[in-house]
Amino acid sequence: MQQQKLLINGQRLKDELERFADYGRTENNGVTRLSLSEEDRLVRDYFRSCCEELGMTVKIDDMGCMYATLEGIEDKPPILIGSHLDSVKKGGRFDGVLGVLAGLEVVRTLVDHNIKPQVPITIVNFTNEEGARFEPSMMASGVLSGKFEKTKMLNSMDTEGNTFGETLQAIGYVGDKSNRLKEGHAFLELHIEQGPVLEQESLSIGVVECVVGMCCYEIEVNGKSNHAGTTPMTMRNDALFATNHLLTELREKLAPLDQELVFTMGRINAYPNIHTVIPNKVVFTVEARHKNPEIIQRVEEIIQSLPNYPNNEGCEVKTTKLWGRDTVWFDKNICSMLEQSANNLGYSNKRMVSGAGHDAQFIASYIPTAMLFVQSIDGKSHCEEEFTPYEDCEKGVNVLLDTVLNILAKSC
Amino acid sequence: MQQQKLLINGQRLKDELERFADYGRTENNGVTRLSLSEEDRLVRDYFRSCCEELGMTVKIDDMGCMYATLEGIEDKPPILIGSHLDSVKKGGRFDGVLGVLAGLEVVRTLVDHNIKPQVPITIVNFTNEEGARFEPSMMASGVLSGKFEKTKMLNSMDTEGNTFGETLQAIGYVGDKSNRLKEGHAFLELHIEQGPVLEQESLSIGVVECVVGMCCYEIEVNGKSNHAGTTPMTMRNDALFATNHLLTELREKLAPLDQELVFTMGRINAYPNIHTVIPNKVVFTVEARHKNPEIIQRVEEIIQSLPNYPNNEGCEVKTTKLWGRDTVWFDKNICSMLEQSANNLGYSNKRMVSGAGHDAQFIASYIPTAMLFVQSIDGKSHCEEEFTPYEDCEKGVNVLLDTVLNILAKSC
Repeated sequence: MQQQKLLINGQRLKDELERFADYGRTENNGVTRLSLSEEDRLVRDYFRSCCEELGMTVKIDDMGCMYATLEGIEDKPPILIGSHLDSVKKGGRFDGVLGVLAGLEVVRTLVDHNIKPQVPITIVNFTNEEGARFEPSMMASGVLSGKFEKTKMLNSMDTEGNTFGETLQAIGYVGDKSNRLKEGHAFLELHIEQGPVLEQESLSIGVVECVVGMCCYEIEVNGKSNHAGTTPMTMRNDALFATNHLLTELREKLAPLDQELVFTMGRINAYPNIHTVIPNKVVFTVEARHKNPEIIQRVEEIIQSLPNYPNNEGCEVKTTKLWGRDTVWFDKNICSMLEQSANNLGYSNKRMVSGAGHDAQFIASYIPTAMLFVQSIDGKSHCEEEFTPYEDCEKGVNVLLDTVLNILAKSC
Repeated sequence: MQQQKLLINGQRLKDELERFADYGRTENNGVTRLSLSEEDRLVRDYFRSCCEELGMTVKIDDMGCMYATLEGIEDKPPILIGSHLDSVKKGGRFDGVLGVLAGLEVVRTLVDHNIKPQVPITIVNFTNEEGARFEPSMMASGVLSGKFEKTKMLNSMDTEGNTFGETLQAIGYVGDKSNRLKEGHAFLELHIEQGPVLEQESLSIGVVECVVGMCCYEIEVNGKSNHAGTTPMTMRNDALFATNHLLTELREKLAPLDQELVFTMGRINAYPNIHTVIPNKVVFTVEARHKNPEIIQRVEEIIQSLPNYPNNEGCEVKTTKLWGRDTVWFDKNICSMLEQSANNLGYSNKRMVSGAGHDAQFIASYIPTAMLFVQSIDGKSHCEEEFTPYEDCEKGVNVLLDTVLNILAKSC
């Protein structure tokens, strides 16, 4: 006889997603809940009350991260589920909050069924994942994993001159350093895909194998500014014409490297940017992402060779690496368990990579970690139109629950 | 026996150019003398005093244009020499002022030699040629020639909210409409080339046959904004990639049309212009100039066909004509006389076109008009580095003087 699967309450999950969206809901049904804002403070208070109602203990660390723990039969390192409650300006109702509410719904389901877990279960709300108010993004998980220096982070300033440290104090969310996340059985983060792949392929679940490595360069092209009407074409050093060649060259050389490579020239500025003046300078960015470091290495070589590209209209080309990051691979065992759970539940799924950064990539450096994706309709995120069908949110949390139960079963 | 040529006083011309540059001289030896500014008022007062000292009568019209007239033997339409005394912000010491001081030096030379001309000679200072403070450029000559509406011009506002009309009143340079330039034997404008051709070809004098026609378009490319890390290359509608194709297409089709065609994409803006976001919109300008209207027509057809260009990355392309102007041909006889004078004086010269706009192009609609160019070192103008060798300024004015004498001889 087949055992009845334990499933979450999809309606409750949906209601809670909408309830949380009330904290900062915008006119167009998006959310503005910048880190450490009044909306963030209120949603934290509400989240805490939800957890305490379930008998969980809520602790805060020195970066304002919240840890709500359901006691286990054994006092062992917990299974962690979480993400972040902050949003960008005019962001959506799913990014981040879904991963926190996934934890809440898993615990509620366990409590509904009077299941006391073998090891503790902790829901985590990482402070300031977005970096939309205080840079950089993934600030708190970066400090926890030793990637960022705490003092520097506390001094990070918003556009109005408030520091992160002062503001964290002001909203009453400075806790003790000893409460920091130090160990765990596993860390699971459910997140919206923020890309179009799952929807395009009509799949419910993405099992995320890694957060891809990337590099980002700034290319500066220096030519000569002159009057657009009086300078013959042969006497020009037009920085935009040179840029046009460089963009073509980059696209032609990068595209064939691998079909999974993504590259973007997102920012371009011409100077003096007047229609009657030949541009003397153009600055643009090129960033590329791929899981294989050898591909990224090839990308960097191609970018670095641009100053020697002969078709430069007599302009000088400089390249500056703005930053890069290595691919972060998630825990193979947990990935397999998540995949197995999705299959057991009959949810269509595939292995995929994350092109965007997440707190999980930092936590993966010291706790076995994996991520799940659910659809982003039209690939949209960080905007008011951001949407994930509620049945997919529900499926995602069901997979999490199933995997949590499997981990618990193994830890007996 | 060969007649001794009458020549101007080059040292005096140089001294006066430097004296005029004191009105608004910048730290880096350029000039800021915006139209109707305090510097403009003072230079006008000084110019008036220079003319009155020579026994000339100075009149002002309702647009603030100044007309300094040396009486002729006959009370006939005058020979006009002139340009403008206003400059752009951080402009140079030659643009405009050279054409006015050319007139002053011609008259001074005649007075030196007690030559009373057969017909009057009038030096003109056209108000607000640059349009740097009050748009549009060539404002007063545009009103004189019926291209611009006076009431609209009087309401033109600077960035501080002052209208042209109020400010003209405030500096005391509103004259009578009856003083407007109505007729003339000829109008001669000496100007710096603002391009590199004369210097590159080591020539002293350019006889300007026309101000070339032009068209200016704005191209808007609309794609879809998405996350740079999570959107596969095949699922993008990248407006910058599409722009890259369009720039290449434009350059490949425009360049072969004619070697004298100039075209420039001077302004380009990408949105949202963030390195991690695929641009959903790019807007750029393309402007092209050529003397032959058929070439401009071909340019416009090429631009207008861009929305149907297939290689558009799934983006929508819109073209909007911002403006255009027809080629203005100068008076053939006066051009020949100027060329003849340059040859007689032994100055190297060539026929050329003006890619930039000048007051002369408007005056040409009702008075026989021509222009002379002298070198712009490195093609630079509208900047503090703007420079023309003083010996070339002198040569330019000598050509003017010679042509004026020839016109006078014919009008006897």
